[in-house]
Amino acid sequence: MTILIAHLGPAGTYAEDAAIACRAWLESTSGLSSELRPYSSIPKTLRATESGETQLSVVPVENSIEGSVTTTLDTLWQMNSLQIQRAIVLPIDHALISRAPDLASLQTVYAHPQALAQCQGWLERMLPEVRLIPASSNAEALHKLEQEPQSGAIASRRAAKLYNLPVLSYPINDYPDNCTRFWVLGVTPSPGGTHTSLAFSVPANIPGALVTPLQVFATRNLNLSRIESRPSKRSLGDYVFFIDIEASADDPTVQQALQELTQHTETLKLLGSYSIAKVTC
Amino acid sequence: MTILIAHLGPAGTYAEDAAIACRAWLESTSGLSSELRPYSSIPKTLRATESGETQLSVVPVENSIEGSVTTTLDTLWQMNSLQIQRAIVLPIDHALISRAPDLASLQTVYAHPQALAQCQGWLERMLPEVRLIPASSNAEALHKLEQEPQSGAIASRRAAKLYNLPVLSYPINDYPDNCTRFWVLGVTPSPGGTHTSLAFSVPANIPGALVTPLQVFATRNLNLSRIESRPSKRSLGDYVFFIDIEASADDPTVQQALQELTQHTETLKLLGSYSIAKVTC
Repeated sequence: MTILIAHLGPAGTYAEDAAIACRAWLESTSGLSSELRPYSSIPKTLRATESGETQLSVVPVENSIEGSVTTTLDTLWQMNSLQIQRAIVLPIDHALISRAPDLASLQTVYAHPQALAQCQGWLERMLPEVRLIPASSNAEALHKLEQEPQSGAIASRRAAKLYNLPVLSYPINDYPDNCTRFWVLGVTPSPGGTHTSLAFSVPANIPGALVTPLQVFATRNLNLSRIESRPSKRSLGDYVFFIDIEASADDPTVQQALQELTQHTETLKLLGSYSIAKVTC
Repeated sequence: MTILIAHLGPAGTYAEDAAIACRAWLESTSGLSSELRPYSSIPKTLRATESGETQLSVVPVENSIEGSVTTTLDTLWQMNSLQIQRAIVLPIDHALISRAPDLASLQTVYAHPQALAQCQGWLERMLPEVRLIPASSNAEALHKLEQEPQSGAIASRRAAKLYNLPVLSYPINDYPDNCTRFWVLGVTPSPGGTHTSLAFSVPANIPGALVTPLQVFATRNLNLSRIESRPSKRSLGDYVFFIDIEASADDPTVQQALQELTQHTETLKLLGSYSIAKVTC
């Protein structure tokens, strides 16, 4: 049986790098072979697995510089069936890709807005006169180079190789410790793991509604490695919370905490219990 | 003396609407007259006040649908001298603006990505065949209409009036309760108010580092109306927290909490104590 893995496409995105790491993990742990399936947006990627078109989805959750990928969190909150199987942490090292002979020949640089933001300092320092134009993906930026030899694009070195384009400068990101965390999701819960993620909404307009759920973990000495609030889209000041706990959902203390949490939350969703893999590219 | 108010420009943005509300507030409370000064980005707007070029800045902090304006939070964390004077909550009602005679004639719609996201459902339902093109601001989208009478732009009704363009449909946002919260910032602390905002980082890699600061407020029954985490940009999993407390910084309980908080945080910044004004356009 071949496992199908949905990811944000097209070829050459960092999401594809994470899907490749996911394929390697599947092969090494269970001997299963798998194929990648690119989709044009994060909601489409997740829906492919929810509908059974693919068995797994790989989506970005958080970048160490830019923060949460809010589309992923908002889409998962609206879904019911997907469970996190694993987290993959991928280093993000941007390359400046161009057919131009040198930096001085460049007039325009295309890149996804996140990549432009992550290389802002380098671009201001090295290419102060160049026009920076946002692209909808790294791959779209690379396609621009076909007609424009005096232009550059920001993407990974693997993408440069894939599109058979030269790397002019690498790495060009401002912060060396630039990583993106991806989640691998499927429809069946994965047992064990070192981390548990959940999402909940609290009853509206009750003072202390936000503090009580957090105390459930604090009193049990359960460490939260992350807390993120997202608007519920009902009214300003009304939130959905996403929490990562540094413990497995199998842990009896976590189970007690989840039990108690149902009394202080309006909707509570267990997103999954999983381990984290750090990959090198 | 005329007070200068910096805001994200150009003319016709929602940030200008908030700056107009700020000008009205200044006139009604202190009789001071003021003038608006548009800037091309949020960091430039805030730096104008930090450097003394303007006395106040008006910047968006949070939208009820899209969530935090992360550029505002990240820029304020890097600054030291700005204090919130007031919060302004502005209803965001988008209009479809075009010289085309009817919806059926439209081929393209230009809008800021946030406006496109906030009207996604309406656009899919009413204009399924139309090309949606992101613009860097509402004003840029409106400028496109000069050369393209078969195109539309999404902006406020005030912007349509300002650019002398007809409104084809209003309101077109998917969620009726669409609001954006703005902060008015200046260099002098403003006394009193009903809310206090602060930002802090916690010592890295200490279990429970996130929970302890929150308990400081919970044990005093101080309600947090909002908590937002932003990456510290040092490493994945290392955050800066932004918290809004529903009490004045003058309140002795808040002062005790702030005192205790210094023991559990690495860097602690009081962003200001202020009241919230809801405006109608």
